[in-house]
Amino acid sequence: MDVKEIDVRSLSSSNRHTLPYVHKVGVPPKQNPWKEFSATLKETFFADDPLRSFKDQSRSRKFVLGMQAVFPILDWGRNYNLAKFKGDLIAGLTIASLCIPQDIGYSKLANLAPQYGLYSSFVPPLVYAFMGSSRDIAIGPVAVVSLLLGTLLQNEIDPTKNAVEYRRLAFTATFFAGITQAILGILRMGFLIDFLSHAAVVGFMGGAAITIALQQLKGFLGIKEFTKKTDITSVMKSVWGSAHHGWNWQTIVIGATFLAFLLFAKYIGKKNKKLFWVPAIAPLISVILSTFFVYITHAEKRGVQIVKHIEKGINPSSVNQIYFTGDYLLKGLRIGIVAGMIALTEAVAIGRTFASMKDYQLDGNKEMVALGAMNVVGSMTSCYVATGSFSRSAVNYMAGCQTAVSNIIMSFVVFLTLMFITPLFEYTPNAILSSIIISAVIGLIDYEAAILIWKTDKFDFVACMGAFFGVVFASVEIGLLIAVSISFAKLLLQVTRPRTAILGKIPRTNVYRNILQYPEATKVPGVLIVRVDSAIYFSNSNYIRERILRWLTDEEEQLKRAGLPKIQFLIVEMSPVTDIDTSGIHALEELYRGLQKRSVELVLANPGPVVMDKLLASGFTSLIGEDKIFLTVADAVLTCSPKFAEEV
Amino acid sequence: MDVKEIDVRSLSSSNRHTLPYVHKVGVPPKQNPWKEFSATLKETFFADDPLRSFKDQSRSRKFVLGMQAVFPILDWGRNYNLAKFKGDLIAGLTIASLCIPQDIGYSKLANLAPQYGLYSSFVPPLVYAFMGSSRDIAIGPVAVVSLLLGTLLQNEIDPTKNAVEYRRLAFTATFFAGITQAILGILRMGFLIDFLSHAAVVGFMGGAAITIALQQLKGFLGIKEFTKKTDITSVMKSVWGSAHHGWNWQTIVIGATFLAFLLFAKYIGKKNKKLFWVPAIAPLISVILSTFFVYITHAEKRGVQIVKHIEKGINPSSVNQIYFTGDYLLKGLRIGIVAGMIALTEAVAIGRTFASMKDYQLDGNKEMVALGAMNVVGSMTSCYVATGSFSRSAVNYMAGCQTAVSNIIMSFVVFLTLMFITPLFEYTPNAILSSIIISAVIGLIDYEAAILIWKTDKFDFVACMGAFFGVVFASVEIGLLIAVSISFAKLLLQVTRPRTAILGKIPRTNVYRNILQYPEATKVPGVLIVRVDSAIYFSNSNYIRERILRWLTDEEEQLKRAGLPKIQFLIVEMSPVTDIDTSGIHALEELYRGLQKRSVELVLANPGPVVMDKLLASGFTSLIGEDKIFLTVADAVLTCSPKFAEEV
Repeated sequence: MDVKEIDVRSLSSSNRHTLPYVHKVGVPPKQNPWKEFSATLKETFFADDPLRSFKDQSRSRKFVLGMQAVFPILDWGRNYNLAKFKGDLIAGLTIASLCIPQDIGYSKLANLAPQYGLYSSFVPPLVYAFMGSSRDIAIGPVAVVSLLLGTLLQNEIDPTKNAVEYRRLAFTATFFAGITQAILGILRMGFLIDFLSHAAVVGFMGGAAITIALQQLKGFLGIKEFTKKTDITSVMKSVWGSAHHGWNWQTIVIGATFLAFLLFAKYIGKKNKKLFWVPAIAPLISVILSTFFVYITHAEKRGVQIVKHIEKGINPSSVNQIYFTGDYLLKGLRIGIVAGMIALTEAVAIGRTFASMKDYQLDGNKEMVALGAMNVVGSMTSCYVATGSFSRSAVNYMAGCQTAVSNIIMSFVVFLTLMFITPLFEYTPNAILSSIIISAVIGLIDYEAAILIWKTDKFDFVACMGAFFGVVFASVEIGLLIAVSISFAKLLLQVTRPRTAILGKIPRTNVYRNILQYPEATKVPGVLIVRVDSAIYFSNSNYIRERILRWLTDEEEQLKRAGLPKIQFLIVEMSPVTDIDTSGIHALEELYRGLQKRSVELVLANPGPVVMDKLLASGFTSLIGEDKIFLTVADAVLTCSPKFAEEV
Repeated sequence: MDVKEIDVRSLSSSNRHTLPYVHKVGVPPKQNPWKEFSATLKETFFADDPLRSFKDQSRSRKFVLGMQAVFPILDWGRNYNLAKFKGDLIAGLTIASLCIPQDIGYSKLANLAPQYGLYSSFVPPLVYAFMGSSRDIAIGPVAVVSLLLGTLLQNEIDPTKNAVEYRRLAFTATFFAGITQAILGILRMGFLIDFLSHAAVVGFMGGAAITIALQQLKGFLGIKEFTKKTDITSVMKSVWGSAHHGWNWQTIVIGATFLAFLLFAKYIGKKNKKLFWVPAIAPLISVILSTFFVYITHAEKRGVQIVKHIEKGINPSSVNQIYFTGDYLLKGLRIGIVAGMIALTEAVAIGRTFASMKDYQLDGNKEMVALGAMNVVGSMTSCYVATGSFSRSAVNYMAGCQTAVSNIIMSFVVFLTLMFITPLFEYTPNAILSSIIISAVIGLIDYEAAILIWKTDKFDFVACMGAFFGVVFASVEIGLLIAVSISFAKLLLQVTRPRTAILGKIPRTNVYRNILQYPEATKVPGVLIVRVDSAIYFSNSNYIRERILRWLTDEEEQLKRAGLPKIQFLIVEMSPVTDIDTSGIHALEELYRGLQKRSVELVLANPGPVVMDKLLASGFTSLIGEDKIFLTVADAVLTCSPKFAEEV
């Protein structure tokens, strides 16, 4: 490697007394622009170096590795044994008992008939088991995505008047949700979902949970005419407007009883982690008990609404129902992209959480391909968007699942249900489903996380609350839009108004630090040291130049009032300046000229490799003089104010 | 000020030999969240502290200062004298002679009759002279904004078929352009125009110049039927399609002769800066000569197209022509916002350039209010969007303008022209106007800047070329969209895939630097030092965690192969980490847990005040242990590997 170096300065006599050695600022070896560009591309899209294991392998081995990459089951399946199966069996049965009543309820959120929820718990988990790499995720319909899909779809088509078209659009959206997910994974654009910040997700989920719970008041109170809007104002109007004649006390009694039972079961599960199965099977027990009760008492004749009918049999094909042409194609595409991204965010968050708890690696991009493939297959077998469920994945983990086989078990149980048991759900009261959903979504309101966010970062809290109130008072889409906008605004604010700091010398060291953080740090007489805390880009270059000049003006005013000597050197500490662009170099040039007019010398300390490279290429180093660039602030001070440095 | 400090570590015996003193990491005093929030707001919107001079002043003084802030002429007008007037008079006459032919040509780019260009050089410069604070800018219609406005407007209304409605929409767009500019200034959102990067502007301007020059082929070659599209393919088709029967050789001879004259005049002006007035008056001379020539030879009867008619008299009122209701209101608003932002970018860039050359301060936000007010008044007096012109401002500066009075002189000359001389332009050939525009826009193609951008920053160059080719091959809007998108993508890339570096110790110092920049730096045995070069936010937190772990894996593989001892400590140098959010802290927690499983200890060096504050608030410091946080990497190494530190 050929390393150029520029001579910073010849060793002057003054430093004999203090530092033994002044080092030069290094310039990294010049790279081919194409190489540089491809390195950036690689770091952006292939940060995890996914082809590493393929290196130096034979062809047949490469094929096997490739198959294992697409179907991880071929890899872990070889070490599968009875002990693991025991864990998966118990976990699979537990999540099946939890998912069946949830599925029936969630499909209502998506304005679909109850069997579509069950369909979505049969095919997608099977596909995922073969292609996914998370061991703990439980696949199926989830509350938030169901609500989002339902809201977006009913903006386009009325689900009661045009049920068939509505369903076709739902499958179309599911298809494109899957395509979106798979493409993001294949193009390795998985990092895009990172743009929804943790805080925004907490707020969005909390808001969606409250919205979903409010929607359940329809079933819970037995109201027949209910608003189609999801904002809290419309819902509360609907609820109070029907208070006198629309509520059904029998329904309320059934719903409240079982809600109390479910919440109590949840409480038990929380108190004693070993009893995790109590809240897991409580929903199924509620369904069985309440169905039996309604069947005996014929409460449905007294206004208690029941499920009535669930189609028997497994998923019919829906390939020819997807809109591949016409107006609805674009609408389905748009809805699919939004629903697919949200579903992805949830699934990847779950996958990462459990992977880090059990300490295994999860390739986000590969995971997206698996989720995408599962939804594409789902859209052709009458399923709507499925993803990983927070609550069921947690139960799956606690029940001791070992591999994705637990999803296969669950899928098998759902299969048996669809084939044989659906007629038994006829008398299940809707109020029970509402109670089950309410008790399930309560867990999504993570107020502890919100408090921690408030304590840690006020701006994050604003994003969190913006998303929350957006969902609750407007709609899921508005909430989502607010969350994304605030997240972006935050990123842009950082590159628009970066921090700057005045540095001082920490006593008895050679270290220069922010004088606001270290009040004991002392300023160097005649020298102003400013640190710029960001890359200098077009978006902030003017601000940085003006801010530095303002620091100087303020300092000079203070010195003048105190009758102290003027500033002669301005040292810009560049350590945090990770990059600079042409606008940034312009700003530095203007700063240099502005300082010249005030007879202040500009000195730079510790520019990084990229910055040094660009300063050289643009000729800025020769403008200010190469001897004005130092390795450390201490070295720079040594030259600017040798007396002060000697006093140490 | 009450400063909390945490005990980093008790002084161990090992450091007796090396560093005399290990300092503690400072925690800034806890601030009231509201104060913190308002400080951020202030730094974002009032970075320049505009009310500073109002402090501690009497009421009447505050009123005077307020009036002077809105009308700077009240301030500088008091020191105006004859010497200054002499400079302004000459400069004003010079730019007037330049602007009159340009205005007539530019109004064609906007698909408006020639007098509208002159109108826009009469009222707006007057308003600006009273409200603006730049001393050198020359106000009036400019080529790029005229083209942009013309393109956007004709997408909505056909200018030949519905001339009246087209004009009304033009005034509406001008009105909203002014409103946009004023609002951006009043709300102090001026920093938004910084989001168009220098590189993107260079590319956009160059592309627009070529597009404008291509459009002039119509007048230059005397073609009657010409495409309405602006992309190079359509234009060249139009040009070659009419080569056999549509070109007029008389027109070409006149145009080419005077273009050669204009370019020669430009060359003289460039060679000898004192002769700057030669290119400045050359256009007017061309107009006079060619008009006289056509008048005598009656060339208009041989197919040489002439201006024919310019309305006599000053600007009529157009208040009641602006659409304040209906469909066109929204269209005018949209076009006005785009044209207003571009006009602003140009004006502010000019203002800044000349202010830094003459070393006076320019308040960008105040400037925007002035430009906005000028366009609002303009829209009510039959003007279209005016802004600062690059070429005329340069002439103004070189002709020795002193204040905005030169704009008043120019405005007065335009007034006289409108009142008395317009009939004389009847026989002016269009080819001359085309030649004048071509020679004017050539200066916008800044290929030297493009070469410098290529040398300095490859990514900037991509943005530059994207904007350039977008304008040339598609349209001005597409070019603009490409420029903005690439600029944003660049900012987001920085916060998505920040750089990380492995640090080593520079021999004979206590300084740790990037081993790629300083190949002589040596790694510390058993310790891996990683520097993260960005704030840790939701958009990059997962990447940073994975990247650090990958550095560790790579390093451990290397050590294993070499049979060297394992890594025991991972030091994360946090100096460039200017901020962290809740997602970032999560990522650090996961990193800590991941390292624990590999029995590697996590150590932090030099977290900044904001980061330290959040690490404490979130409880992360107590998780990893407060004794694992050091002021410098050197201090951290001292504890992790005392032997190595002693060897120095």
